[in-house]
Amino acid sequence: MDWDVWEAELRRRKKGSGTRRGQKRGPAPGPVRSARPEPKKKVLAVSPLAPKAFPNLPVIRGVRFASAAAGVHYTGRSDVMLAYAEPGSSVAGVFTRSSTRAAPVLDCQAKLANAADTSGGVAILVNSGNANAFTGHRGQLSVSELCAALSARSGVPEECIYTASTGVIGQPLPHDRIEAVLDDLLGSLSETDMAAAANAIMTTDTFPKGAAAEIKIFGESVRIAGIAKGSGMIAPDMATMLVYIFTDATVDQAVLQNMLSGVNERTFNSITVDSDTSTSDSLMLVATGRSQAPPITDQSGAAAVAFRSALHDVMLDLAHQVVRDGEGATKFVEVHVTGATTRRDADKVARAIANSPLVKTAIAGEDPNWGRIVMAVGKSGAKADRDKLAISFGDILVAENGWVAESYTEDAGAVYMKQQDLTILVDLGLGIAQAKVWTCDLTHGYISINADYRS
Amino acid sequence: MDWDVWEAELRRRKKGSGTRRGQKRGPAPGPVRSARPEPKKKVLAVSPLAPKAFPNLPVIRGVRFASAAAGVHYTGRSDVMLAYAEPGSSVAGVFTRSSTRAAPVLDCQAKLANAADTSGGVAILVNSGNANAFTGHRGQLSVSELCAALSARSGVPEECIYTASTGVIGQPLPHDRIEAVLDDLLGSLSETDMAAAANAIMTTDTFPKGAAAEIKIFGESVRIAGIAKGSGMIAPDMATMLVYIFTDATVDQAVLQNMLSGVNERTFNSITVDSDTSTSDSLMLVATGRSQAPPITDQSGAAAVAFRSALHDVMLDLAHQVVRDGEGATKFVEVHVTGATTRRDADKVARAIANSPLVKTAIAGEDPNWGRIVMAVGKSGAKADRDKLAISFGDILVAENGWVAESYTEDAGAVYMKQQDLTILVDLGLGIAQAKVWTCDLTHGYISINADYRS
Repeated sequence: MDWDVWEAELRRRKKGSGTRRGQKRGPAPGPVRSARPEPKKKVLAVSPLAPKAFPNLPVIRGVRFASAAAGVHYTGRSDVMLAYAEPGSSVAGVFTRSSTRAAPVLDCQAKLANAADTSGGVAILVNSGNANAFTGHRGQLSVSELCAALSARSGVPEECIYTASTGVIGQPLPHDRIEAVLDDLLGSLSETDMAAAANAIMTTDTFPKGAAAEIKIFGESVRIAGIAKGSGMIAPDMATMLVYIFTDATVDQAVLQNMLSGVNERTFNSITVDSDTSTSDSLMLVATGRSQAPPITDQSGAAAVAFRSALHDVMLDLAHQVVRDGEGATKFVEVHVTGATTRRDADKVARAIANSPLVKTAIAGEDPNWGRIVMAVGKSGAKADRDKLAISFGDILVAENGWVAESYTEDAGAVYMKQQDLTILVDLGLGIAQAKVWTCDLTHGYISINADYRS
Repeated sequence: MDWDVWEAELRRRKKGSGTRRGQKRGPAPGPVRSARPEPKKKVLAVSPLAPKAFPNLPVIRGVRFASAAAGVHYTGRSDVMLAYAEPGSSVAGVFTRSSTRAAPVLDCQAKLANAADTSGGVAILVNSGNANAFTGHRGQLSVSELCAALSARSGVPEECIYTASTGVIGQPLPHDRIEAVLDDLLGSLSETDMAAAANAIMTTDTFPKGAAAEIKIFGESVRIAGIAKGSGMIAPDMATMLVYIFTDATVDQAVLQNMLSGVNERTFNSITVDSDTSTSDSLMLVATGRSQAPPITDQSGAAAVAFRSALHDVMLDLAHQVVRDGEGATKFVEVHVTGATTRRDADKVARAIANSPLVKTAIAGEDPNWGRIVMAVGKSGAKADRDKLAISFGDILVAENGWVAESYTEDAGAVYMKQQDLTILVDLGLGIAQAKVWTCDLTHGYISINADYRS
């Protein structure tokens, strides 16, 4: 297929619009292999909530990475990453539940449902700059063509090649540009290039996201390391954004999938930046089995519990980094709801608070405006009794028994709100179920990023 | 009860926070009866979407209005309104479904459920500046005390006195200040003071809201006129904001309630400014029976159909005015979803679009970003088929068959988005159900109003 023809057609249609997330932003920091000249662009500052540095990710035995600048949409930066996992690896994934999900998501879901034999290895190929979403039948053709081309060059069967695309919605993916760098990618695979991969998948992100853990299982080292991208359009409904996690543990595929889905609910599915859900959210976990630790074959043994706990820590760390890179964010907020009759109700209340524009703007204004939290509890649809509610900011009890707490002072609330990391605690006083959701504030920065730049 | 004691207590607690909606804004335009000096405050400009003028509301035979400056919270402006309807009037109402709803809402709901005999007349007493919400048992005491005081002075039985309060959440209502103006209110009731009443109930509103209709039923004139307030915290779950509508038609109470609930779903329940739902939303409809037209005793007769249609027009007009006064709004947007399998699904999709921060910021930026509409359809949870979706901006077909439309040009989309009133049409291509939702854009103005002013 000739992409120049499509491009000409698109020019004729004056580029047809589409979501231009990341288009007008500056180039991302990190390794760049392209020699193209750097165009003058407005460079977004790094989020004030960013971690001080990218972590040292350990080598995960059995998986190698490469990245390259294919010029899919951006110039002057890497925009494609390839991960290759050795034969016998187990693969699990969770994906957006959006009904308008992108072609690569549909393709990954179909392949995972078949749980293919991985004796030929596993490959994950990801591009930024173009989401290959709402691209009709052309979208699926692009995915098929890419998988066939990579399979021919690498020997990995097509059914074990997973792709993802993130960026502009509604424009055809120029897959020939990605095909043109496949040989380069395969030739440069390295155990130590995971950080560069984290850079290649960024769009509006202001920093690359990585996290890792190492545990001992029966005395043997097991490592987990993951990377993620995401900044806006963040309110996961199943998985969220693009997240790739690798471990050298040996884990049965069914067990791996079950663990991933469970932990996902309490991590990526419990964050929200703006209540909007992407068409491309994908989270994949690959276990290479190269650790010396014995295989994990069930959910409940000591090894499974230890592994799940470490996996949870890595996923929560990555999820929090996505919130900390929320568009325009200046505050990181944990909303913790306790005392609900059901987990579902606790979650409803936490999300109602975390997604409320009035709560989020109050936080941006450092305003201890607990009345807006009462409002959000009320609108959540969860069972709640006004007179049993208790609200705290961190350790400061703000309201109880249907009114402001006797001990509360506005000064204490105002001082608390000046912190960068905040905790809002709501006890419904009805039962023992609880939920946590993490979010950021809603600022002029969010409006500037999403309204001030005309695409 | 001595409010000075409460005020001292509140000062001790440094005013305990609470939602200070409207507190830092300037005085509202309109009639002011107070002689207090006007403090220097930042005056908000009138919304660019405001109607050119307040409409000429007709006299509704059988109902009279008064307003006064009680100094509940604001100074230098009227903040209490009284409406009195003559004996035999029918009353209907719908209210917020919030589980943290305010004391006056609970009181109104209890009274309406009893459908009291109105042979002693009906009174509606409303204050702005304080919502009497999340005020514990004190809230109910304030309502009871006010109703008793008004009943003693007016002869209207307490069970036919309805109150509402709008403004700060979490501070006790200084009901003695309202009691102090009751004699003045009762002494100044007038058939022609409905416009002044519309001014008295405003909080963050930048213009008063009124609408009216006159129809003939069997040759006799029937009039409907209503007033509303509301600007932020607007995403009604049942009724919304404060809305009072009066008619001289003769309508059975059960029929009136049924009509109001039905029309409410397609009017006030179909608007959203910021997806946040108030604790105080109240909509009441009073039919005085003073028209010469024959009584309406069922839902389906010609008179009922004509009356319902006129009621719909008045309610839709008021609902649109609330959106046009949305905090920070610069665009008025109709989202019209067709081709759904159920009305519920059409409504879900329309709300997902209308509440999406990314769609709303794109509109603010005059960006024809249809990819974000695809995203919102996808996240809505409604049944949708990516490849059957069609999206239009007004008459401009933007996308169909899973991709950008052949005829669409970005120029046409960009020109369209410059208009002040916009229509986003989404056809799901699955069935015949449809829904409309009205909203506004999300701008720096919304952030400034809700984050920049520390309470």
